[in-house]
Amino acid sequence: MLLDDERLDYLLAEDLRIIQSPSVFSFSLDAVLLARFAYVPLKRGKIVDLCTGNGAIPLFLSARTEVPIIGVELQERLAQMATRSIAYNNLSDRISVIQGDVKEIPAQLGFEKYDVVTCNPPYFPAHEMSDKNISEHMAIARHELHLTLDESVEAASKLLKQGGKAAFVHRAGRLIDIITAMRANRLEPKRVRLVYPKAGKEANTLLIEGIKDGKPDLKILPPLIVYGDDGEYTEEVRALLYGNS
Amino acid sequence: MLLDDERLDYLLAEDLRIIQSPSVFSFSLDAVLLARFAYVPLKRGKIVDLCTGNGAIPLFLSARTEVPIIGVELQERLAQMATRSIAYNNLSDRISVIQGDVKEIPAQLGFEKYDVVTCNPPYFPAHEMSDKNISEHMAIARHELHLTLDESVEAASKLLKQGGKAAFVHRAGRLIDIITAMRANRLEPKRVRLVYPKAGKEANTLLIEGIKDGKPDLKILPPLIVYGDDGEYTEEVRALLYGNS
Repeated sequence: MLLDDERLDYLLAEDLRIIQSPSVFSFSLDAVLLARFAYVPLKRGKIVDLCTGNGAIPLFLSARTEVPIIGVELQERLAQMATRSIAYNNLSDRISVIQGDVKEIPAQLGFEKYDVVTCNPPYFPAHEMSDKNISEHMAIARHELHLTLDESVEAASKLLKQGGKAAFVHRAGRLIDIITAMRANRLEPKRVRLVYPKAGKEANTLLIEGIKDGKPDLKILPPLIVYGDDGEYTEEVRALLYGNS
Repeated sequence: MLLDDERLDYLLAEDLRIIQSPSVFSFSLDAVLLARFAYVPLKRGKIVDLCTGNGAIPLFLSARTEVPIIGVELQERLAQMATRSIAYNNLSDRISVIQGDVKEIPAQLGFEKYDVVTCNPPYFPAHEMSDKNISEHMAIARHELHLTLDESVEAASKLLKQGGKAAFVHRAGRLIDIITAMRANRLEPKRVRLVYPKAGKEANTLLIEGIKDGKPDLKILPPLIVYGDDGEYTEEVRALLYGNS
């Protein structure tokens, strides 16, 4: 079941397993944060996770909801890893993975049919790809080579029903870009949470959720600090990762 | 020198005095935060403080810079309070106050001539003016009766040279509005700081600084928490207020 350098990691808080590979793809803390930040319906509705990678976010979400989740991933190899992880966890009846281009997905899955869209898109502009040693898989997942921020926001909006919710995680420095893209695509930002690597440092990550055709009313949630002064995860992050909350 | 219920308060960190009145106008913590947040040149340049009220921000800034500062205030009574405070502190050679409408001020003071503009504008939409008991002075200072957020951003931009800096304080929920207004007026947001009343609470205030015709590159500074769990000002806020840092 495991290929090359793949390994089967634990998702401790969810009591699930996930296939990862140091050379192909491993999910990041940001995926954990997004899966915890996003609103999810408990029993009714449909969820799409764009840029699903190895399926981490659908797996995390499956512990919080009974509704069907579709993960969308451009890269065949990553989509296959996700599908194998889902099968390993006996979640194939609730989570499906589609290999495809996020830009084309609304036409394929249907417009305005979904209740929640989550998305952890590529973070870095294509021109910032300075590290020539990373694999093509990593490059595509991290850099806007095949999908820009604007395109991922547009796809999310097209999938969502009126009143549906889109949640994104991105670099903090892209705050203005993501707000602008969301408003341009009928997604009114409603909740923002900023993530700081340590107390006293600048934010490096942002979580943002918008409602399709929602009314302006933004809440900025308490800051999330990742590491304590001791260099270890803070209590809040440990609870998100390990479920000891 | 003092009228009606006016009193002469201390600005402890700056070792200055300021005339305040509980029924007319008293500066808020937000003015302190803005005066500390804003970039100011040390020796060269010119600063304008829009919506200066009783002149708190120019007084605070005068402790950090030698450059001339002009405060602009619509309300005659507040402008007079500011002028008397400035005279009391022997700062009339460095701080001047103009009574006038912020919307008309660029035409009066000159376009693109200033290096820094600070502004603590009215926070609340006119239609949210539910408290009929507040004085007209308070109502004008707090509510967008004579000046909207968009208008204050536009005036700031018109005053600024290319490369000049505008710093605002506003309600956190207006983040999207202020970013949109700034970009629409050639002010590229460069630094944001969110102010939280207590740890674990939503942000209620934001500080934002933009550069006229600057390049996109937003930094989100560490969160500022105002009150500790004991209900007292945090160490950082005490240092801003009392200068014991």
